[in-house]
Amino acid sequence: MKFVAGWLSQMKFDSVIVRFGGEIGIKGKWTRRAYEKLLLKNIKRVLKHYGVSHEEIIRRLGRIYIKTRNAQEVASRLTCVFGVSSVSPAAETTSEMNEVVQKAVELADTVLKSRSSFAVRCRRIGEHPYSSMGICEEAGRRILVNLEKRNLRVDLRNPQFTIGVEVRDDCAYVYAETLQGVDGFPLGSQPKVICLLSGGIDSPVACWLAMKRGCTIIPVYFDIIPFTSEEVTAKALNVARKLFEWSIGFPRKVYIVSHGRNLETFIRESPRKLTCILCKRMMYRIAERIAEMEEAEGIITGESIGEQASQTLKNLRVLNEVATKYPVHRPLLGFNKLETEELAKKISTFKISTRKTGGCSAAPKKPATGAKLEAVKRAEQELDIEGMVKESVREAKTVIVQA
Amino acid sequence: MKFVAGWLSQMKFDSVIVRFGGEIGIKGKWTRRAYEKLLLKNIKRVLKHYGVSHEEIIRRLGRIYIKTRNAQEVASRLTCVFGVSSVSPAAETTSEMNEVVQKAVELADTVLKSRSSFAVRCRRIGEHPYSSMGICEEAGRRILVNLEKRNLRVDLRNPQFTIGVEVRDDCAYVYAETLQGVDGFPLGSQPKVICLLSGGIDSPVACWLAMKRGCTIIPVYFDIIPFTSEEVTAKALNVARKLFEWSIGFPRKVYIVSHGRNLETFIRESPRKLTCILCKRMMYRIAERIAEMEEAEGIITGESIGEQASQTLKNLRVLNEVATKYPVHRPLLGFNKLETEELAKKISTFKISTRKTGGCSAAPKKPATGAKLEAVKRAEQELDIEGMVKESVREAKTVIVQA
Repeated sequence: MKFVAGWLSQMKFDSVIVRFGGEIGIKGKWTRRAYEKLLLKNIKRVLKHYGVSHEEIIRRLGRIYIKTRNAQEVASRLTCVFGVSSVSPAAETTSEMNEVVQKAVELADTVLKSRSSFAVRCRRIGEHPYSSMGICEEAGRRILVNLEKRNLRVDLRNPQFTIGVEVRDDCAYVYAETLQGVDGFPLGSQPKVICLLSGGIDSPVACWLAMKRGCTIIPVYFDIIPFTSEEVTAKALNVARKLFEWSIGFPRKVYIVSHGRNLETFIRESPRKLTCILCKRMMYRIAERIAEMEEAEGIITGESIGEQASQTLKNLRVLNEVATKYPVHRPLLGFNKLETEELAKKISTFKISTRKTGGCSAAPKKPATGAKLEAVKRAEQELDIEGMVKESVREAKTVIVQA
Repeated sequence: MKFVAGWLSQMKFDSVIVRFGGEIGIKGKWTRRAYEKLLLKNIKRVLKHYGVSHEEIIRRLGRIYIKTRNAQEVASRLTCVFGVSSVSPAAETTSEMNEVVQKAVELADTVLKSRSSFAVRCRRIGEHPYSSMGICEEAGRRILVNLEKRNLRVDLRNPQFTIGVEVRDDCAYVYAETLQGVDGFPLGSQPKVICLLSGGIDSPVACWLAMKRGCTIIPVYFDIIPFTSEEVTAKALNVARKLFEWSIGFPRKVYIVSHGRNLETFIRESPRKLTCILCKRMMYRIAERIAEMEEAEGIITGESIGEQASQTLKNLRVLNEVATKYPVHRPLLGFNKLETEELAKKISTFKISTRKTGGCSAAPKKPATGAKLEAVKRAEQELDIEGMVKESVREAKTVIVQA
């Protein structure tokens, strides 16, 4: 079903059908009810945030119907709400057959181009004196008759246009367009997670995937000035702002940890090829402390197996060794770079992440790709790791990223 | 570019172009060379395994060219080799302009349908007395003249057919079809991982994603008879067989652990709602021992946040707590069920995984979704966990899954 610019102004939509079947639908009764309630709450948050008016929201099994004069805008906004499978701007009517067919003909009149093919599809729940097939046939017949001059033809297999009819007890909705949502679970259905956010391409995508599965996020940015520029901090905060567009109504707090001094210490005191490993282990340690403070339940990172020197399977094991209280979740483990980039484009963080700013100048020419845990521990024993962690956590700043 | 059945018998292909740029191309010189060598080795393994004859394999920067009379079969087999971006059956010629154009015309003659649109695209490396654009124009012109009766037209933007020309020093290749590979890294470029393989939809997809990033796998199946049927074991081994089609030439060992007695103990001795958590923690512990024995570097599971009661973020944290030596990698963390299913179809495990066999009859009606670590530890203190782990590992069988 394609969105056909221009015709919306002619047909008056007064409703939006919100579908969320998928994974929510197969949950147990109790969980499903809780998830549906949460989804409804998140939908209201989004509509309120963007100031999109609506008259009524009706929750029914597997569907939410929204009465609104801004059907197109409501539909478009809700494609960015986790848990929503798809949405359709629609026109409501009673379930009386004649009225349904009449609305379908009206919609067809606005939508169907000359010589195009179409199909009518119906989904029906409740008791009615007609079948779904009956509605489709009657609506199809009436469309052909009423719009005879357009030379339309029915094509049930591969139609250019589809007129959808959804009959629900004593109401019915007709629609011609379905916008895909991102599915997943309503935000807040899982606990908070701490996200290592760098401003690069990967970490925001990892954050987003955790959000998609219901987790709210608290991004932590590690500021490594003087090994990078202040622009990078701004970039990371811009990425965070973009990400928060997916969590309207939820906290927008970001931690900024001064990590440059730690890096200086590693460069000065430890074998140069271990710099990246030591740096990352420190990040994990600090993230665990913040997770404790925030009562989060896990740490999200953007690592993918083998993508960078620090991300070989051996190095990931050495990194994991310091995360003793919280699991480190890496949603991008199995992603190819190109797949991550495509997703970054979809969620609108790619452009910000690829703005040119300097990289990290602390990385050695030959970082260890198969660091030995013993060697890393030995290097750390020479340092006051606990003191460094405490200092970093104490000095960490939090900022609220405005929308 | 579409595969057009039937025309292959007319044009004689004698080569296959194998592309693998992507992520391998951006590695440092040393790593890239090692990866390219490994990729070549894996390609040879696959051709040998399937008994597809070939005359020569030429490795050049960013490309592998295979001389073979079985171009179509070679191309098709290599789409299942990790690290390969795409392949094209091709016809080789010298880089002399007239000969290249002549081959392009021959190919066009076999491929282009009456009234269709086409484009010629050229990629050229080396010194030549002509430009890439020059080849395209000349080939396009000659095709239009020689095949005048077919009423062809050039469409550079959105052609129905594309004639590809790749000039490489003193050789050139023409082709009309490009088959997509799965990209990623060559198998074996990362160490071994232990995979929890259940035979269900998720775990094989998680295994495959780890393989895609270069890891070789050792699946571990937990046999929970009498809480399931023997058919499930057979199913898991069939899934493993399918997965091993993606790792031709690598070990095909699967561990089978008798886990039913452990489950009986949990049901008998521990709070019923903790059964799933206790069961899974035991699996992790046993997997860690096997990882040690096998010198693997991590454990792969098919868990996705919130998909099942045992996979809430809180429960994942309680599970992680027992994995102290190896990271638990969960490539499906951020996947929706539907996304996992689509990938399962693509890698051909879906049909096997969805064959009807009984599920696990040990799962309680109300499994804990937010298990408390203290409660779980208390339950475990009542049991001889270490003894159970040792017994399970000692009794574990290994089978070699035949192709």
